[in-house]
Amino acid sequence: MNFVSIDALRVACQDLPAGDAAAAEAVARRQDTLTKPQGSLGRLETLVAWLARWQGREVPKLDKVKVVVFAGSHGVTAQGVSAFPPEVTAQMVANFAAGGAAINQLAKAAGAELDVVPLRIERPTADFTLAPAMDEQDFLAAVARGYETVEDGTDLLCLGEMGIGNTTAAAAIASALFGGVEQWVGRGTGVDDAGLARKTAAIEVALKLHGEVLHDPLKAAAAVGGRELAAILGATLAARHKGVPVLLDGFVCTAAVAPMMRLHAHGLDHALAAHVSAEAGHRGLLAAMNLKPLFDLGMRLGEASGACLAVNVLRSALACHTGMASFADAGVSGKDEGPA
Amino acid sequence: MNFVSIDALRVACQDLPAGDAAAAEAVARRQDTLTKPQGSLGRLETLVAWLARWQGREVPKLDKVKVVVFAGSHGVTAQGVSAFPPEVTAQMVANFAAGGAAINQLAKAAGAELDVVPLRIERPTADFTLAPAMDEQDFLAAVARGYETVEDGTDLLCLGEMGIGNTTAAAAIASALFGGVEQWVGRGTGVDDAGLARKTAAIEVALKLHGEVLHDPLKAAAAVGGRELAAILGATLAARHKGVPVLLDGFVCTAAVAPMMRLHAHGLDHALAAHVSAEAGHRGLLAAMNLKPLFDLGMRLGEASGACLAVNVLRSALACHTGMASFADAGVSGKDEGPA
Repeated sequence: MNFVSIDALRVACQDLPAGDAAAAEAVARRQDTLTKPQGSLGRLETLVAWLARWQGREVPKLDKVKVVVFAGSHGVTAQGVSAFPPEVTAQMVANFAAGGAAINQLAKAAGAELDVVPLRIERPTADFTLAPAMDEQDFLAAVARGYETVEDGTDLLCLGEMGIGNTTAAAAIASALFGGVEQWVGRGTGVDDAGLARKTAAIEVALKLHGEVLHDPLKAAAAVGGRELAAILGATLAARHKGVPVLLDGFVCTAAVAPMMRLHAHGLDHALAAHVSAEAGHRGLLAAMNLKPLFDLGMRLGEASGACLAVNVLRSALACHTGMASFADAGVSGKDEGPA
Repeated sequence: MNFVSIDALRVACQDLPAGDAAAAEAVARRQDTLTKPQGSLGRLETLVAWLARWQGREVPKLDKVKVVVFAGSHGVTAQGVSAFPPEVTAQMVANFAAGGAAINQLAKAAGAELDVVPLRIERPTADFTLAPAMDEQDFLAAVARGYETVEDGTDLLCLGEMGIGNTTAAAAIASALFGGVEQWVGRGTGVDDAGLARKTAAIEVALKLHGEVLHDPLKAAAAVGGRELAAILGATLAARHKGVPVLLDGFVCTAAVAPMMRLHAHGLDHALAAHVSAEAGHRGLLAAMNLKPLFDLGMRLGEASGACLAVNVLRSALACHTGMASFADAGVSGKDEGPA
C-alpha cells in the first residue's frame, strides 16, 4: 500500500480492525477444560488467546513464521554517536546474507523464515541535527516498503532492525513522543561516556530544530527517525490489516511503533513486546507504552533477536492448547467443590 | 548409587566436582570474536558458558535432552491442604502416560524425551503433622531412585514433579531451612482462604513436632518433604556427578534441592532456575538461594513445565555460539578504538 501523504497514513493508523474477540473467548473456554488447574499456565494461556484474536481463528497456527530485519543508514552518525563506524550497517547486511549473524541462527532455531530488507543504505538519511532525517516522500516510501513485506497468510511476524546510529534515532523519537531526553539515551552498541554525551547533545539540538513538528507522531518519526524504523511501522500496520500478530524486538523496534500507539489507544494490541533489552531506555519506554515483555535476559543486539527467541514460547503455548487432554477425556477428577 | 545412611548422603552432597572452568573460559573467548557487540546477547552468552562448564566440553551439545517428572503421594492431604483430591496424582500419572498433559506437549516442543517416575504413589507418605513423612530408608530409597534416572551421556536434564499436597511439603522444607512460615505458603493448585489457613496450621504443627531434626537439611527433607522431592534431590546430585546441567522448575522443585545448597555453597551451580512461578513462596525462595530465573510468565503448574520451556532458549543460545561468524571471517569492522 502506498500512502499519498502523512495525513493519509495518519488516517490509516487511526482506522484499525479490532480483532476477533469470539476467537479469543473460544480459546479461554477451552483452556479451562484442560488437565491443569485453571490459569496455571499463566501467560502461555493468554498468549494463545492473543494469537487467536489477531489471526482471527479459534485454533491459531504457527506454520508460517516470518522474521523481517530492516536496515538503514543514519546521517546522525557524523555526530559521533556510535561505538562502531557507519560502514558496519552494510557489512552486517552482507553477514545476514551469508548466514553468519545471530539472527540467522535464531531464526533457524525458531523455525522461521528470515528476510533482510535494506532501505537505500548506500544513501544515509540526513543528519537530523542539521535537517529532517527524511522528507515526507522518503519517509512514506520506507513505510510503504515495510508494509509490502508482510505477506498474506503469515501466521506470526517478528520485526527487527540493523543500523549504526539508530538508537540515537529511537531515543529522539521517544523524547519527541514522551518528553525528557536523558532517560532514553543508552550506550547502544557500546559507546563510551563521551559518546553518550554527544548522543544526548545531538538529540537536544534536534528537538529544538524540529520542535514545530514534534507534536505530530508521524512527522516526528520522519524528522528524527530512520528508514528502518519507518519500515517497522509500516510492517506493523500491514500486519494489523492482514491478521498477523507481531512480536516486537528491542528499544529501536519499540520506538519505531510508538507513533501507532499515540495515534490509536489500541493501535498496538496485535503486537507483543518479546523482551526488555539492556539498552537503557527500553524498560521505561515499554512502561510508557504499557507493554509487558516476555523476557528479561539482558540482550541488546537488535536484529529481531529477542523477538525471534519468543517464537518457541508461542509454539509451546500453542502445543499445550491444541494437544492437551480435557479433564473429562483423561478421567482426571476436578477441583474439590466444598471444603476438604 | 545407593546411600547407606543420611550421613553418607550428606558426605556425597559436600564432595562435589567443581566443573570445567577452562571450557567455560573458551566459550567466553569465542563469544567475544562473534559478529555482535561484546556481551550483547546477554544471558544467552553466559548460558552457553554454563553448559560448557558443567558438560565439561568447550563446544556444548544439546542432542540428548531429558525431562524427568517424579510423582509422589502425600499423607498430609488428610489435613485438607489441597484444592484437588489426592487421587488426582495417580490420574495425572495416567494422563502423562497417555500423552495428554501439558508436559507431554512441552517436552515435544523442546525436542526432549520425557520420563515419568511414580514413587510408590499407591502408598502415601505419612501425614507429617503426626509422624515423619518418611523414615530414613524410605527417604534414601527415593533419593536413590532419582539418582539412577540420570543416564550417562545426557546433555541437559529438566526436573519436575506431580503430587497433590506437595506445595505444603515444599513450604515446610523452606520453613525448616530458611525460617518463617507464611511467606512460603501459597495456593498451590488453587486452594481457598480456609485451605490456606489449614496449610499454614499443618506446617506450624509439623515444625514443632519435628523441631529436633530440622537443623539438618536432609533430615528435614525426610521429615516434612516427599518422595518426589527426595528423588529430585537425588537426580540433581547424580547430574553433578555425571556432567549434566540441570534446569529446575518451580517452587516444589526448588525447595527439593535447597538442602544441597545448604550443604555446599556451590552445590547448585550446575542447576539453573528456569522460571519464577506464580506460587507465592517461589520468588522469595529463589532470592534466598541466590538463583536468578530465566522466565517470569505467571506459570504455576509444576510437571517440569517451566524447565522445559527454557530448553529452546538454551538451544537458541547454543546455535548462536556455534553458528555465528567472527568479525574477521565476515569482514565486519570492529568497534572504533578512539573517540569518533
